[in-house]
Amino acid sequence: MKFIDLRSDTVTVPTQAMRDAMYNAQVGDDVYRDDPTVAELECFAAELVGKEAALFVPSGTFGNQLALFTHCRRGDEVILGDDSHIVVHEVGAPSVIAGVQLRTLKSSNGQLNPDEVESKIRGIDIHFPSTGLICLENAHSNGRVIPLSNMEKIYSIAKKHNLPVHLDGARLFNAAAYLKVDAKDITKYCNSVMFCLSKGLCAPVGSILAGTKEFIDRARKGRKLMGGGLRQAGFLAAAGLVALKEMRARLTEDHENALILADELSKIPGIKVNYENVHINMVFFDMSETNYDTDKLVQDFYNKGIKINSAENGEMRFVTNYWVTKEDIHFVIDTFKEILSA
Amino acid sequence: MKFIDLRSDTVTVPTQAMRDAMYNAQVGDDVYRDDPTVAELECFAAELVGKEAALFVPSGTFGNQLALFTHCRRGDEVILGDDSHIVVHEVGAPSVIAGVQLRTLKSSNGQLNPDEVESKIRGIDIHFPSTGLICLENAHSNGRVIPLSNMEKIYSIAKKHNLPVHLDGARLFNAAAYLKVDAKDITKYCNSVMFCLSKGLCAPVGSILAGTKEFIDRARKGRKLMGGGLRQAGFLAAAGLVALKEMRARLTEDHENALILADELSKIPGIKVNYENVHINMVFFDMSETNYDTDKLVQDFYNKGIKINSAENGEMRFVTNYWVTKEDIHFVIDTFKEILSA
Amino acid sequence: MKFIDLRSDTVTVPTQAMRDAMYNAQVGDDVYRDDPTVAELECFAAELVGKEAALFVPSGTFGNQLALFTHCRRGDEVILGDDSHIVVHEVGAPSVIAGVQLRTLKSSNGQLNPDEVESKIRGIDIHFPSTGLICLENAHSNGRVIPLSNMEKIYSIAKKHNLPVHLDGARLFNAAAYLKVDAKDITKYCNSVMFCLSKGLCAPVGSILAGTKEFIDRARKGRKLMGGGLRQAGFLAAAGLVALKEMRARLTEDHENALILADELSKIPGIKVNYENVHINMVFFDMSETNYDTDKLVQDFYNKGIKINSAENGEMRFVTNYWVTKEDIHFVIDTFKEILSA
Amino acid sequence: MKFIDLRSDTVTVPTQAMRDAMYNAQVGDDVYRDDPTVAELECFAAELVGKEAALFVPSGTFGNQLALFTHCRRGDEVILGDDSHIVVHEVGAPSVIAGVQLRTLKSSNGQLNPDEVESKIRGIDIHFPSTGLICLENAHSNGRVIPLSNMEKIYSIAKKHNLPVHLDGARLFNAAAYLKVDAKDITKYCNSVMFCLSKGLCAPVGSILAGTKEFIDRARKGRKLMGGGLRQAGFLAAAGLVALKEMRARLTEDHENALILADELSKIPGIKVNYENVHINMVFFDMSETNYDTDKLVQDFYNKGIKINSAENGEMRFVTNYWVTKEDIHFVIDTFKEILSA
Repeated sequence: MKFIDLRSDTVTVPTQAMRDAMYNAQVGDDVYRDDPTVAELECFAAELVGKEAALFVPSGTFGNQLALFTHCRRGDEVILGDDSHIVVHEVGAPSVIAGVQLRTLKSSNGQLNPDEVESKIRGIDIHFPSTGLICLENAHSNGRVIPLSNMEKIYSIAKKHNLPVHLDGARLFNAAAYLKVDAKDITKYCNSVMFCLSKGLCAPVGSILAGTKEFIDRARKGRKLMGGGLRQAGFLAAAGLVALKEMRARLTEDHENALILADELSKIPGIKVNYENVHINMVFFDMSETNYDTDKLVQDFYNKGIKINSAENGEMRFVTNYWVTKEDIHFVIDTFKEILSA
Repeated sequence: MKFIDLRSDTVTVPTQAMRDAMYNAQVGDDVYRDDPTVAELECFAAELVGKEAALFVPSGTFGNQLALFTHCRRGDEVILGDDSHIVVHEVGAPSVIAGVQLRTLKSSNGQLNPDEVESKIRGIDIHFPSTGLICLENAHSNGRVIPLSNMEKIYSIAKKHNLPVHLDGARLFNAAAYLKVDAKDITKYCNSVMFCLSKGLCAPVGSILAGTKEFIDRARKGRKLMGGGLRQAGFLAAAGLVALKEMRARLTEDHENALILADELSKIPGIKVNYENVHINMVFFDMSETNYDTDKLVQDFYNKGIKINSAENGEMRFVTNYWVTKEDIHFVIDTFKEILSA
Repeated sequence: MKFIDLRSDTVTVPTQAMRDAMYNAQVGDDVYRDDPTVAELECFAAELVGKEAALFVPSGTFGNQLALFTHCRRGDEVILGDDSHIVVHEVGAPSVIAGVQLRTLKSSNGQLNPDEVESKIRGIDIHFPSTGLICLENAHSNGRVIPLSNMEKIYSIAKKHNLPVHLDGARLFNAAAYLKVDAKDITKYCNSVMFCLSKGLCAPVGSILAGTKEFIDRARKGRKLMGGGLRQAGFLAAAGLVALKEMRARLTEDHENALILADELSKIPGIKVNYENVHINMVFFDMSETNYDTDKLVQDFYNKGIKINSAENGEMRFVTNYWVTKEDIHFVIDTFKEILSA
Repeated sequence: MKFIDLRSDTVTVPTQAMRDAMYNAQVGDDVYRDDPTVAELECFAAELVGKEAALFVPSGTFGNQLALFTHCRRGDEVILGDDSHIVVHEVGAPSVIAGVQLRTLKSSNGQLNPDEVESKIRGIDIHFPSTGLICLENAHSNGRVIPLSNMEKIYSIAKKHNLPVHLDGARLFNAAAYLKVDAKDITKYCNSVMFCLSKGLCAPVGSILAGTKEFIDRARKGRKLMGGGLRQAGFLAAAGLVALKEMRARLTEDHENALILADELSKIPGIKVNYENVHINMVFFDMSETNYDTDKLVQDFYNKGIKINSAENGEMRFVTNYWVTKEDIHFVIDTFKEILSA
């Protein structure tokens, strides 16, 4: 049975072009720096985001944690939004691997207030840790794209205080697509960036951490320490190259489909779509007025060949991706109506 | 030259009774559990806060960090106020020693919203760390006393979720004095409490961590790991016993003096006292309208025999204590006026 | 140019069967437990080593560090050989990720003395950390296979003291081939085992951590924390399955080739082969009597199409693998003689 | 009942001169750098060991761990003897606070082999942590004093490799007394040194960490992080000053008494004194030939007014100190004979 999968864009299986690229990939032992495909990917990726160097890492969480570990000394403080992926969805890793203290700010739809950021940067006092890093996230995992002006302000504050900015750009190219800018126009406001080859871009495994050459050299050693020194990683890199070359342009389709999905969902009685957050490929909605049990909904949808997640903090999230067509969306809507009216 | 010292209540030197008690203290090697005065202090202190057992520790920061280390497993998340002493003034130690992730909530004058606390307790999900602890602070280092009703609500939420509550009670007895309750009426809403023997109580060195016997047994080992296993600590304990027996009752004098100070300060043109925060022995005020440079003020006061701190985040803080009399306060006010009008 | 690569067995590129398996792999999002190929691999791998459950991890270092992290509490002490891979070649990760203290014992060719192991297990004392784990390594990265009797003794000591044993079995199947036993006959003397799918088995990326179901459940979460939660990892698992099904039996060929290489090397004047360590696919030798600069040798060999590493601690190491044929070995020997006599 | 206490020199209560000094001590808030007695002690102590600056810390373990924390970056490797106090008796703290990996060498009576030390210093390799520190211990807690020539060799190796050396000199002045040299003649072979004011010197609480000004400035902040920022610590410093000024010269008495004790013990049938280790105030002996249960011995001695520890690893240790007179020693010997013959 072929499922329509709206749980996340992480579920995307690779395209045929990726399978072909993997099949034909030239590989070597990347710990020895012998893998030409990994080298090509890292070079291409660095260029794409306007950084000196890049490093292939096994996952987005790995890349973010490696960034914290490489930027900071243990005990440093990191300023970031309290709803960011690093805080909420990375299993407390910052306290384990980098050993840093999180200074979380209330975000407004993913945006940090630049003045508040500046107010949290530590001065010199025997009671204070050093501020070591500011982290931003764009596109935010709440579905929104942060305006460049906000990033620019925070980046210039960071520069003034001699602090690096790391960008969790797991969905960087979705943000670029939404903003209709080049990725570089976003990443010029950060010192390092992590972005995923999987998710909307459909590569099976892997993310990129990019920054200065000196930063990436140190990160390469940190990657080994964290167990991310892979051997013939060229297979994954081959798919990653296809992802970066062929799949970025079409992310707008996922965004369009998300808007269609949002429109159709909002027509269903009792469903309230959070329209403000429909920037990329995610549709958040509240269906509490339908009084339908969301765990039951998951099961009902599953029986019809549709995979969804249950509510998180009272909110449902449907995510479009390469493998979800316009037809699929209409089928989802029809099924939804059917279930609710049953 | 005898100074009037308004910088903090940590500056309090011990009383003559404390010097006498130290001089005559019976001591032994406390790592061998041979120090009778430490044993007496720990026993008395536990009783005072209604806990099974207590442990002498070298400082308040030590006691708080030992509590985090003993309650939590590494990587656990701790829910606490973003303006709490543990977050702001303990040098990032939670990320170094206990290795925990701080989940900070915006506090309202030191109070956490119980519903928000509950919403941050983690469920089971492969992306989530475990919530390991909730920390409260009373009296808060912003000068305010947290109402018991607020503590009670949070404690009952914690219990429901099987989570411990640690109370940073560095100024616990100031809170009790303000609330006109027994310390036990406060500490019944926490599983462990740290309180200081120094500060308003005037002992030279040391704090107490109290909790269940099982907790304190483990904390004793953690204290050794952190380098806090002292030898003939009975000297400090002797002063601590005087602090707990003789100095608690008079804390209200410091509070009264703080109110006098607040009243007199507020009469000076250009000075705005933050009256809402005058609960204990601290007076916060804004003097920006005087246009007087606060660093210069520190120097001017010093030349007149008065020690104060400069502004922090635009706010001045004067703290009363045992060694600051009513006459001293009037001298401070007169001096202040003189300086401003010079 | 096709190189003969004797640097390590980590350089092995996958076989055609592996490429085919990867091309045709059925995959899904393994964080959601949706990848059937990963599931099949984990099931097959657990069975192979007689454990309840297994987990795919990105590398051997990742698997070992995850084992430390999952077995131990922070601050625990781990007993292991001072020449083990975990101590020497994992970048100090035990102090960063698991936060454990290494108690290293002088190994005798990779073997720990069981009595010495027992003598280092900590009793109860306020000065002592808890012993949390004993680590063994078989085959050892020095090329030797540890006798089962040694493992059995240490395992029974561990059991007596209620301590788990983790086996770094990066080359577990080489050890089994050398001992002519089933892998299970080795892994019955440990509570958890890590073994690599790459190295002699030729899979491109990945290792397995196996143990009890309860242990693996916790390790799965630790894997996510460490950034090893991969998405469509089934591609790597597909190659891993071929590795485990088709490549184990032929490891004896590599061992035979190593013996031939050792014999031929020892005939070269000035070269002293460490015969005692030729158990598996590694030949260690000393060529100091030739007075030939080993860094120059690396270059000379490279020019002839042969990749080798330079001396480490005065010792050269040549490693055979699937892609090094008997003919290749004779070519290496001829080339070596030629270089030395030039 | 007045006990003769041979368990350790940590049991020493302060002298009358110390009580007097404490009683009259001038104190202030040392976190504000306002305590004149602490300042005097730190100044005097730095001078004594020929270092630029010194810092008062609550205990020897605290000072050693603070040295590791200040010298090293997390994940660094520390080379030290496997029987050193830092490894054996500090509760695994190096893995918790500094987060460093211990590389322990088999010591020969507390001495490290300089060549072996050098062989363990890490080169540059992606698999290797950085070596961050070498730790020595003199006098060693096994009772022996390390020859200066050994320290000199290791220090010069360290310098060659640009590595700092930390000296655990808990009993530094015992070593100096035994070697008949100035403490500076020992500490010139280290970059930082910790020595205790308690133990043989009889101060109640506290140790000193000394090194360069830059090192101590950073250590001061680390001390605050670790909870060792004390307030009116001048009381302890006052006793410490007496310890350093009046008690160093008389340590030879303890050493003489230890030799008498050793001689007398060796005359008791079945007791074998480890004479080679009688350098300072400790006598180690084996009494297994007496077949007398050592736990029972502890009790029997206690009933006669003598406190001893039971055997550790089959060895008994008696420690002399200021409060143990020659007469006491003869009483101990007589009592011992009586118990064994009963």
